[in-house]
Amino acid sequence: MNHFRMEILVKPRPGLLDPEGKAIHHALRSLGWTDIHDVRVGKAIYIDLEAEDSVTALETTEAMCRKILANPVTEDFEVSVVGDTERITA
Amino acid sequence: MNHFRMEILVKPRPGLLDPEGKAIHHALRSLGWTDIHDVRVGKAIYIDLEAEDSVTALETTEAMCRKILANPVTEDFEVSVVGDTERITA
Repeated sequence: MNHFRMEILVKPRPGLLDPEGKAIHHALRSLGWTDIHDVRVGKAIYIDLEAEDSVTALETTEAMCRKILANPVTEDFEVSVVGDTERITA
Repeated sequence: MNHFRMEILVKPRPGLLDPEGKAIHHALRSLGWTDIHDVRVGKAIYIDLEAEDSVTALETTEAMCRKILANPVTEDFEVSVVGDTERITA
């Protein structure tokens, strides 16, 4: 078994309301940053796990995303091994 | 002015308590994923902005992070242009 650090980026789907993003957009504008079109806020989750190889690590992490880490109705996610170029997008 | 999409990853500093990460770790373990050592949860923020060039875009976004997006005491951040390889880490 090998050690992998997985990076999971969970983002609100385009078009869906994102109140936290709106609040940050407003705050940045009031601080003088006016050249901003949009702000979206999601989660960055880092999981250290043991797996046979990086393909298994990616598959396991993708299963975790489908099961509990991302809401399939409102969120998209990307999984990658940190320091690796393989990436599963859904 | 050009259009840039910035990706900001804000993570709790190593060693600091991360109750949300702990809760996810516990939930994954109770679902049968036992080969996990650690889970850390941060934010992924996406900002669409106008800037002269990518260097200015990175500097502007780094200033936003230092001002309001990240807590300098408890969090680290990484800024990058999406689809670009330049990255400022702090």
